[in-house]
Amino acid sequence: MKFTKMQGIGNDYVYVNCFEETVKDPAAVARYVSDRHFGIGSDGLILIKPSDIADCEMDMYNLDGSQGAMCGNGIRCVAKYVYDYGIVKKENISVSTKSGIKYLDLTVRDGKVALVRVNMGSPVLTASQIPVVSSTEEMINAPLKVNGETYYITAVSMGNPHAIVYMTDVDHLDIGEIGPYFENHMAFPDRVNTEFVEVLDDHTLKMRVWERGSGETLACGTGACAVAVASILNGHVDGEKPVTVKLLGGDLEIFWDRQENLVYMTGPAATVFDGEIDLSFLE
Amino acid sequence: MKFTKMQGIGNDYVYVNCFEETVKDPAAVARYVSDRHFGIGSDGLILIKPSDIADCEMDMYNLDGSQGAMCGNGIRCVAKYVYDYGIVKKENISVSTKSGIKYLDLTVRDGKVALVRVNMGSPVLTASQIPVVSSTEEMINAPLKVNGETYYITAVSMGNPHAIVYMTDVDHLDIGEIGPYFENHMAFPDRVNTEFVEVLDDHTLKMRVWERGSGETLACGTGACAVAVASILNGHVDGEKPVTVKLLGGDLEIFWDRQENLVYMTGPAATVFDGEIDLSFLE
Repeated sequence: MKFTKMQGIGNDYVYVNCFEETVKDPAAVARYVSDRHFGIGSDGLILIKPSDIADCEMDMYNLDGSQGAMCGNGIRCVAKYVYDYGIVKKENISVSTKSGIKYLDLTVRDGKVALVRVNMGSPVLTASQIPVVSSTEEMINAPLKVNGETYYITAVSMGNPHAIVYMTDVDHLDIGEIGPYFENHMAFPDRVNTEFVEVLDDHTLKMRVWERGSGETLACGTGACAVAVASILNGHVDGEKPVTVKLLGGDLEIFWDRQENLVYMTGPAATVFDGEIDLSFLE
Repeated sequence: MKFTKMQGIGNDYVYVNCFEETVKDPAAVARYVSDRHFGIGSDGLILIKPSDIADCEMDMYNLDGSQGAMCGNGIRCVAKYVYDYGIVKKENISVSTKSGIKYLDLTVRDGKVALVRVNMGSPVLTASQIPVVSSTEEMINAPLKVNGETYYITAVSMGNPHAIVYMTDVDHLDIGEIGPYFENHMAFPDRVNTEFVEVLDDHTLKMRVWERGSGETLACGTGACAVAVASILNGHVDGEKPVTVKLLGGDLEIFWDRQENLVYMTGPAATVFDGEIDLSFLE
């Protein structure tokens, strides 16, 4: 199987061009290739497929073989792949995902995609839809007791639930200690991704994220979107211009178009290497 | 740069054929490629080079860019590489390393190397040479107080220091809790690799290893050799036939030739995938 390893601010997947390759058992392949010691090493497997309803389809599998719906960092790499390899030679493309069709705008430098802007859809603030248990309709800067301490939480869904907490120093936070208490808090019936955020100035935020089921990760695209929305709602950034969100793996620019109520995420996509692996033993 | 990812019982390196490629700054390349999210992902980089004194040279770099002397799992992959790719078409080969020239015997199946036997040299039992602080000349099943508890330790050097401890159940050991207390114990002035060993029968051992500087790893070739030697000295295995040592990453067969006082390690070597990566940005 030919593959390409790509990453978006450190969120790395094995990409396979299924315009040419066929992957028979993607769940088994995802489990095998995701392991670094015996396979390739990645956050999962993304198959780039032909689509009848969009320019291509992104079919993604997590490292445990479960199917993923959508990944903001992954879809930027899909866009780079189909453009750079000449499959879809347009600067505005559509990608079909399990969360619907996504629209992407490409910034091309020297004939290759450098940045991709993704329409990430509308944020959901209604507590019951996030879901978060709350006495108010929305949960904006509301107190929540977590492991005996009171935190002020803003809850936002970007298709998945996020709890945003502000603090003055995220670098020295012991996220492995506190993260699980948020993730499994009874206020979040579907568990929650928690973003710990430091406001650097009126358009720059630094965040660390604890993802449900994964622990701390280098980057979470929907998390960065939720953080920008929460920070505008709380008045920490003005939102007139795009908000720069600094994650461990790199920076994303987030713009919340209040008129259309759509969140746009712009970030890099990088090809790391091309490879070929013999998977005949899996058949 | 063209490369091949290979592993020996889960100990994985990026291998580069320097009969054809030139790597200008191997320390920087090792640091970059070892990172899974932004590079390739490995325990380090191994350059396979021409040699005037052996069939080839193994020049290895750890993931922090420091130069490594020798790796029992890595050298088996070097042997497989040079045989399978037709560089050295012999079943008994010599490899020059920073720890001297090593001699390897290959088991070939269907034209490819499946198993490699490595002469790992002589075990050192003299306490001062290991080094371990001891009132006796050798430290065989000697009591040592570690974090308030008394353990019975056998100390062996296979070029690097090992402390071997026996227990009835290694699967449920909290190695992350106890490992650092052994590693940094004042009895071991150069720190120590600690092997926790369960005796399964008179020729089979199961071990987990805490490597100095790395924590728990899937496999440690010198550790498996030290464990076999210690287990023969303590009468846990008879040593008449090879001892099977079961590690988290797979099995190794160890034979201690008492006449020549040489330890032979036999184990698998596997090619995982071939790749090509653009490193021009490092120059």
